[in-house]
Amino acid sequence: MAKEGPDMMEETEFMIDTNVGKEPENVESSGDAKEMRAVILSGFGGLNKLRVAKKAMPEPQGGELKIRVKACGLNFLDLMVRQGTIDNPPKPPVVPGFECSGIVESVGENTTGFEIGDRVMAFVNYNAWAEVVCTPVDFVYKMPEEMSFAEAAAFSLNFVAAYMMLFEVANLREGMSVLVQSAGGGVGQAVAQLCSTVPNVTVFGIASCFKHAAIRDSVTHLFDRNVDYIQEVKKISPDGVDIVLDCLCGENTGKGLTLLRPLGTYILYGASNMVTGDTKSFFSFAKSWWQVEKVNPIKLYEENKVIAGFSLLNLLFKHGKCSLVKLVMDKLLCLYDQKKIKPVVDSLWALEEVKEAMQRIHDRGNIGKLILDVEKSPTPLMASDSTETSEAGEEEEEPEGDNDSKERMPFIH
Amino acid sequence: MAKEGPDMMEETEFMIDTNVGKEPENVESSGDAKEMRAVILSGFGGLNKLRVAKKAMPEPQGGELKIRVKACGLNFLDLMVRQGTIDNPPKPPVVPGFECSGIVESVGENTTGFEIGDRVMAFVNYNAWAEVVCTPVDFVYKMPEEMSFAEAAAFSLNFVAAYMMLFEVANLREGMSVLVQSAGGGVGQAVAQLCSTVPNVTVFGIASCFKHAAIRDSVTHLFDRNVDYIQEVKKISPDGVDIVLDCLCGENTGKGLTLLRPLGTYILYGASNMVTGDTKSFFSFAKSWWQVEKVNPIKLYEENKVIAGFSLLNLLFKHGKCSLVKLVMDKLLCLYDQKKIKPVVDSLWALEEVKEAMQRIHDRGNIGKLILDVEKSPTPLMASDSTETSEAGEEEEEPEGDNDSKERMPFIH
Repeated sequence: MAKEGPDMMEETEFMIDTNVGKEPENVESSGDAKEMRAVILSGFGGLNKLRVAKKAMPEPQGGELKIRVKACGLNFLDLMVRQGTIDNPPKPPVVPGFECSGIVESVGENTTGFEIGDRVMAFVNYNAWAEVVCTPVDFVYKMPEEMSFAEAAAFSLNFVAAYMMLFEVANLREGMSVLVQSAGGGVGQAVAQLCSTVPNVTVFGIASCFKHAAIRDSVTHLFDRNVDYIQEVKKISPDGVDIVLDCLCGENTGKGLTLLRPLGTYILYGASNMVTGDTKSFFSFAKSWWQVEKVNPIKLYEENKVIAGFSLLNLLFKHGKCSLVKLVMDKLLCLYDQKKIKPVVDSLWALEEVKEAMQRIHDRGNIGKLILDVEKSPTPLMASDSTETSEAGEEEEEPEGDNDSKERMPFIH
Repeated sequence: MAKEGPDMMEETEFMIDTNVGKEPENVESSGDAKEMRAVILSGFGGLNKLRVAKKAMPEPQGGELKIRVKACGLNFLDLMVRQGTIDNPPKPPVVPGFECSGIVESVGENTTGFEIGDRVMAFVNYNAWAEVVCTPVDFVYKMPEEMSFAEAAAFSLNFVAAYMMLFEVANLREGMSVLVQSAGGGVGQAVAQLCSTVPNVTVFGIASCFKHAAIRDSVTHLFDRNVDYIQEVKKISPDGVDIVLDCLCGENTGKGLTLLRPLGTYILYGASNMVTGDTKSFFSFAKSWWQVEKVNPIKLYEENKVIAGFSLLNLLFKHGKCSLVKLVMDKLLCLYDQKKIKPVVDSLWALEEVKEAMQRIHDRGNIGKLILDVEKSPTPLMASDSTETSEAGEEEEEPEGDNDSKERMPFIH
């Protein structure tokens, strides 16, 4: 759904690079342009490290496609990139973003299977949040005709990750049960839909209370994040569940393992609890890392349990599993064509609104996926705006995020 | 194969309870007997804690079968039971043994599916090493006609464990690769055979050099335990393997994880490195436990790896998964009927030879399964025998096992 009504911001800001000196809607976007607009992360830290600026137009190398981007996916991982709290972060300045949809604009040498004009969705190893990206053909997939660009940008990462966790790592079968943290998020909603393609699967969802009305029908049982959900799940299923999907990490790891049935699989697919505030803090990151409960393999042996980690981006860009992901995407597009799955879009944001979008995902305000709509104009400035003019590389820090405001609407400063 | 030639012991001993006062081959074994022979573990510790004695004949409760035992399986776990180095050990005196084959002698009330005279194999929660056992019908399976009792006693635990690890926990598929520690052992040989039922599976086996000639054909690549097998495997498969099966634990856990491909599964199914010597040593057990490298889930996330523990006995007797095991057994018996799998029997031993058999498995001298053949007479005493007469509960300690003699033939004292 498009952002509207209560999702409107009371206060916002543009992040146009003051050196550019013109409004983004006037930026040239023809195929002959030498420059393009992109979101730039100038250094690790708070929201003030992000701005929209012009960059040289990329051109495809051999084996690559040049894609005119229509929509980009925004994931929790992008917040961790912003803070530098990921393994081997890139050296800033960098254009963030790992997935997009758009139209093939040109084709590099020795590149087959795609033609100019093809509607595609793609994984990109950074650089997705721009008007144009180039990416190897191995990471590009043709979109179904009836899929919108926003849907496509919401589809790739969430559904591929959900599918691979359920069917490649955990072997979901008829009659099993699944517990998903962040049931209202993009992966959570994909998990719920994919579970409904298997007979008699029980889905336990954890989500903040204010999301319950919107997502109640997508899961079998829904619990508030703030209640003792371990006890609630055990009341319904005393011996636990077959699969636990955890994107939070921290103390949830131990809880998740406790809830596993024998032969059950716990999968950690994110560590969003490591994003403790708005700013980079290596200390808080390291603290979180060490606080993660480590697992003794002998305990797994005695309890017949399985613990797994899943990072789709590492699988694609570090571990070279793009052929396997292609097979998974084929299966998913088949399910989409059969109308068994459909990505849930939370809201659309202009590139210039990336800070507000990030704040919304930080506050876990979203239901489904946040999309950067490259052709969208930013919401008009309010009278009380505080225009961002900080330069790349500056070390100024923004105040820590308000931990009591997880459920508030997107709003910054 | 039966024990013969070089497997013959130079020195042996009987363990007849001196109170019984007659040779075991004369013991009454008709269905009307009030007593039966059994191996008794009188306390935790060395081999001297084991003896054969008479016990009251058990009678089946409702839902149980009474089985006249023909053969029993001896597993590494039985050594850990003897030492008391398992989780929640039973209170001695206890009759060890978790699996046997035999003939149904009587049927408890409300017990269906079996008749007197049926040839069966069974899991037992202790008490298998006896002339007669009673066990719930849920743990009993009919033997194929062409299967011998020795084969049956070698079949249940090893093949069910191997099958469930490969296909339930790890999802073995065409083209994958498997590394198995202790390739020459009972589970190792079952793993190798089951892998050959899937097209194009590569099996890397680790075994002591002296076993290589006997098992070379069962695996694709075979390495000596004492070489740096990590490097050897990587020479052949630079990105590692899909499944690592580890029954050793300790430093092998870290090695196993290193060798895993992305999306690969490491399975710990035993901890035989914890059996450090011949005698009970809580200190050495605790030391081993803490030395096991604990796993940070975030590392699994970054590397896309899966770590699992598998204990079939816990699955059966603590976790109530006997229905699932029954389904697995049906599939295995189907493979046996098709002559795709066949248990490998290392050697047959009389109940009175349980110490020598245990020493052989402790020294990792076996290729395939060690079987206690209930009807077998012990090998005649040699001149230099050292008859064991220690009583239950005595705290005397035997000397530590010689760590340099892992590959020697069975030989005690």
